[in-house]
Amino acid sequence: DRTGPAVPQTTIFTVMSALAQQYGAVNLGQGFPDESGPARVIEAAVAAMREGRNQYPPLAGIPELREAVAAHQRHWYGLDPDVDEGVVVTAGATEAIAAAMLALVRPGDEVVAMEPFYDSYKASVELAGGTIVPWRLEAPDFRPDLVRLGEVVTDRTRVLLLNSPHNPTGTVLDRAELEAVARVAADRDLLVVTDEVYEHLVFDGLAHVPFASLPGMWERTVSIGSAGKTFSVTGWKIGWATGPADLVARLKGVKQYLTFASGTPFQYGIAAALASGPEFYEAYVADYAERRDLLAAGLADLGFAVHRPQGTYFVTTSAAPLGYADGMAFCLELPERCGVVAVPTQVFYADPGPRPEVRFTFCKPRAVLEEGLERLRKGL
Amino acid sequence: DRTGPAVPQTTIFTVMSALAQQYGAVNLGQGFPDESGPARVIEAAVAAMREGRNQYPPLAGIPELREAVAAHQRHWYGLDPDVDEGVVVTAGATEAIAAAMLALVRPGDEVVAMEPFYDSYKASVELAGGTIVPWRLEAPDFRPDLVRLGEVVTDRTRVLLLNSPHNPTGTVLDRAELEAVARVAADRDLLVVTDEVYEHLVFDGLAHVPFASLPGMWERTVSIGSAGKTFSVTGWKIGWATGPADLVARLKGVKQYLTFASGTPFQYGIAAALASGPEFYEAYVADYAERRDLLAAGLADLGFAVHRPQGTYFVTTSAAPLGYADGMAFCLELPERCGVVAVPTQVFYADPGPRPEVRFTFCKPRAVLEEGLERLRKGL
Ligand SMILES: CSCCC(=O)C(=O)O
Ligand SMILES: CSCCC(=O)C(=O)O
Repeated sequence: DRTGPAVPQTTIFTVMSALAQQYGAVNLGQGFPDESGPARVIEAAVAAMREGRNQYPPLAGIPELREAVAAHQRHWYGLDPDVDEGVVVTAGATEAIAAAMLALVRPGDEVVAMEPFYDSYKASVELAGGTIVPWRLEAPDFRPDLVRLGEVVTDRTRVLLLNSPHNPTGTVLDRAELEAVARVAADRDLLVVTDEVYEHLVFDGLAHVPFASLPGMWERTVSIGSAGKTFSVTGWKIGWATGPADLVARLKGVKQYLTFASGTPFQYGIAAALASGPEFYEAYVADYAERRDLLAAGLADLGFAVHRPQGTYFVTTSAAPLGYADGMAFCLELPERCGVVAVPTQVFYADPGPRPEVRFTFCKPRAVLEEGLERLRKGL
Repeated sequence: DRTGPAVPQTTIFTVMSALAQQYGAVNLGQGFPDESGPARVIEAAVAAMREGRNQYPPLAGIPELREAVAAHQRHWYGLDPDVDEGVVVTAGATEAIAAAMLALVRPGDEVVAMEPFYDSYKASVELAGGTIVPWRLEAPDFRPDLVRLGEVVTDRTRVLLLNSPHNPTGTVLDRAELEAVARVAADRDLLVVTDEVYEHLVFDGLAHVPFASLPGMWERTVSIGSAGKTFSVTGWKIGWATGPADLVARLKGVKQYLTFASGTPFQYGIAAALASGPEFYEAYVADYAERRDLLAAGLADLGFAVHRPQGTYFVTTSAAPLGYADGMAFCLELPERCGVVAVPTQVFYADPGPRPEVRFTFCKPRAVLEEGLERLRKGL
């Protein structure tokens, strides 16, 4: 008997990046930049390696990085996580999400998550024996429906899984929306896990408001961050979770048996990265805003219905005006036909039926975005 | 309600390494060397970082490392894992074990594991909803009892979890023992997961025989390896699992949602490391054999009953001759009393009751081992 427990399907990112390779396509699917982060970040990790910092870090992460994460949250958000008991470094946000679900969700529990949702959410909830319950952000504007939130929360809801800035739609929850969510969390006594890996990618003068900074929310919230997006080192997989000591202790209890701890020299690199001054973040967001505008305008020119994102490095489009009702069919055909890879948004829904939405990333150099648009222009 | 699912306790390694820090103790507890691996391994990772190889690797690992893992198994063992479908790179052996248990064990299944067992085994089996069933290696010689194996396997046994060279006892299963285990695996139609991270630490002219190399075993076996021990870079957390495509596919299905993939530049470093010629491994094992002899002789002089290990970098002793029946009490008192840290073997048993066995590692420079012995001499 070689069957076993139900195992999740291959992620869309693996499928699509393999197609990109196969067809030499411009990969606007999986969200990783082509260019590495700042040289001083790389060199800090190089120095750590050459100084012999290559052995297991403490389970919670090296003190320098825990300090840096806490200082970063103090500086930007006025939060004050405890360096010893309120911060745990993880193998990227993915491990933090898996550990949070395995640590907080009991078999039979429900986890309410903004839908569309990053695909690891559902898999992690199900590994824990729970059920994911979608809280739909409806196309075409993808704003949260707060009345609907009250309806999807039940007596079995244990965790509310938030994500703002939101992948794939780029929605950034504003303070009023967050406050409404906080009221539900308080009224229904929910734990909250919030994935904020795009915290520094918020455009148009909007501000990222961490859910944990809302009055009364710190004590019930696990906040997840990551260095991969902000410092363009997605392959280093350095993320973290912060929160009250008891919830972080639960995460550590699980996380220690998923990977124990990882990436010692990278942890030194990211500790250095988090000491970046405001000019780093300003240049970063200004640069990405330009790329967003380039890609959004180009896709609109080609006839896609384009949803302009407030944050993240993804643009959600609809291929319906081009005659496609099924984004998956569209995306599977695109690499061969145009030499471009994109991601069908339907994989981010609990019900994976056909939808016309397609996600393109703009975390690529301008020349690559232009080449991708040119290929689409020729091939479509 | 802030309780949740049962979460594992803090690992002994975290507890003991924290005590080592607190008392400035010589840390002979957690198994990590003080000195980094070969400079060419470090420099290969440095080069990868500076060349911009800092983004997500493919889920299964970079092709160069999968090739190197397969070539290593061909060279040393005559095994021939498929580079595309038979190898997956993991965040250390710990992630491979967690993914294997979550991918293969169904709620209610039993996993038979050699006891004492590395602490993540039990936690991983339980995360999957299974039960660990100990197959005891009895003190003082810690050889496997093959009659007993037939008795602990039941109709609910799904996986046999092997570990040779064995942590903590240092037992290396010989071919006759492995053949007897293979007969049980075949007769009872078991899947086998085998943790072989100490494959290159086998002393006294003995040879490591991978379980998967036994006739008929490849198809039912997932073999787990790691670079951390062999190349002295435990903080890089580069491990792997190899086996038949269907089992490896199951592991990948789970692993993609535990961490996705990790350590891109380290993967290049380890691909270079695995190309080491036999002289590297010969010098490595000769060096460790000397350290083993130094520590074993020193501990025997101090009155411990010493079990000479055939492999790994751990010596199991009994503190009973020194008047201690409870290794945990002994180890908790040792840092303050002597400035030395060791690990009580009882944490590696399903029933964590008192036992007199204490594990010391010799993966430290000779001067550190001598200092540790000197401190024990003074303090005991
Ligand atoms: C871990 S691969 C996915 C990368 C990503 O964050 C995305 O593309 O949504
Ligand atoms: C992951 S910490 C444990 C290190 C180790 O392999 C051991 O000490 O047994």
